[in-house]
Amino acid sequence: MASLHEQPNQPTVAPPGRRERRKAETREKLFRTAMRLFAERGFFQTTTEDITRAADVGQGTFFNYFPSKEHILTVLSGRQIEKVRDAHRQADAAEIPIREVLCGLMHAIAKEPGRSQALTRSLFAAFISNDEVRHLLRETLARGRGTLAEIIVAGQQRREVRRDRDATALAMAFQRNVLGTLLLWAIQPNGDLDAWLDETFKDFWAAAEIRTPQKGNESPNRPSKRRSTKTIKTVKGLQS
Amino acid sequence: MASLHEQPNQPTVAPPGRRERRKAETREKLFRTAMRLFAERGFFQTTTEDITRAADVGQGTFFNYFPSKEHILTVLSGRQIEKVRDAHRQADAAEIPIREVLCGLMHAIAKEPGRSQALTRSLFAAFISNDEVRHLLRETLARGRGTLAEIIVAGQQRREVRRDRDATALAMAFQRNVLGTLLLWAIQPNGDLDAWLDETFKDFWAAAEIRTPQKGNESPNRPSKRRSTKTIKTVKGLQS
Repeated sequence: MASLHEQPNQPTVAPPGRRERRKAETREKLFRTAMRLFAERGFFQTTTEDITRAADVGQGTFFNYFPSKEHILTVLSGRQIEKVRDAHRQADAAEIPIREVLCGLMHAIAKEPGRSQALTRSLFAAFISNDEVRHLLRETLARGRGTLAEIIVAGQQRREVRRDRDATALAMAFQRNVLGTLLLWAIQPNGDLDAWLDETFKDFWAAAEIRTPQKGNESPNRPSKRRSTKTIKTVKGLQS
Repeated sequence: MASLHEQPNQPTVAPPGRRERRKAETREKLFRTAMRLFAERGFFQTTTEDITRAADVGQGTFFNYFPSKEHILTVLSGRQIEKVRDAHRQADAAEIPIREVLCGLMHAIAKEPGRSQALTRSLFAAFISNDEVRHLLRETLARGRGTLAEIIVAGQQRREVRRDRDATALAMAFQRNVLGTLLLWAIQPNGDLDAWLDETFKDFWAAAEIRTPQKGNESPNRPSKRRSTKTIKTVKGLQS
């Protein structure tokens, strides 16, 4: 079986040529169909034949796009990493508080696996049970954590995130919270995932936000140039 | 298949009579053997025959103790609930700070599923994939959350836990952190679970601990009768 990490992260935006556009469309169709079937019958109970039949694509075509069923999950990994990079760009632009960048990212990351509780369970089962898929998840999480830590460092430099906690430890806390929420939500019969994530983010941020200033060090009430009035209000609201 | 919640939570301490002691021993042997096999070959790949053979017990004997393989997991659930109740008794005794009660509980809860990374993965797979087992996990977590919330309310009354966050929400945060940690740890090739949990607890407690007092409301520096010097030191250390 081809390695799961040789698969390049192919962009999902339509490329210029018609042929390339078709290819991107077929790839997307196979990915979406696979995700639907993983949710309906589980990852292990879905075959590549099931996917090509449901996507109305020739069976051999599948292998022009993915060396195996497991490789479909590399598309998901690639998209999740892309979302963390988007958040990093937002943090670099410094137009919105880091709190909002991270809260938006938490919802964005959970969105794809959280399309349904059955899909979340199916993906967890695949990631937990299959050695190669687990290795892919581990690598994806490690890469995501690296970028997340950079976002958190930016927050620390802007005095929005506490500086007495290691950025990588806070990045790990972020992932732990997302995974824990998805797991708890996925075993419920129903529930609004976004509402669950809002609660989770409150606790994550309570652990990450900057605290009462140390003597003569910094004042949370003195607006810095980078901080909008809104930011201060948000931080104050959470600290009360 | 018999319902998974009719199984009473049988005590693991040896009862008085010889016959009862034997029964408790056999039950414990079946449980331990099953957990070992679940770790070695996975929950789904383990049969009741595998368990009785490895435990050196007659095959029919199994069903005198457990109606099915899935029912072995009720022993685990029962033990986890018992640990939360132990923590509740510790909280009631008010001899150690709530922070220590909860930190001890986090390690205690993770201990059994965290005997090995393979066991954690096997248990997650069982709980995620099987409807009845998932229902059991959901019920166990809900019961645990109820007791946890009572511990947290005790912490709020003693002004050790923040009062502007709902106790049930903090109980959920506790479970989310334990599950997220177990999951992240279980996909690594190795790692000291207790060290991971210490990091996790830091973030959980940072979100749960009492904050800067509101004006004229309460002073964290004024020792209350219930607070030992040790507690104050701990809380101070975390706030810096």
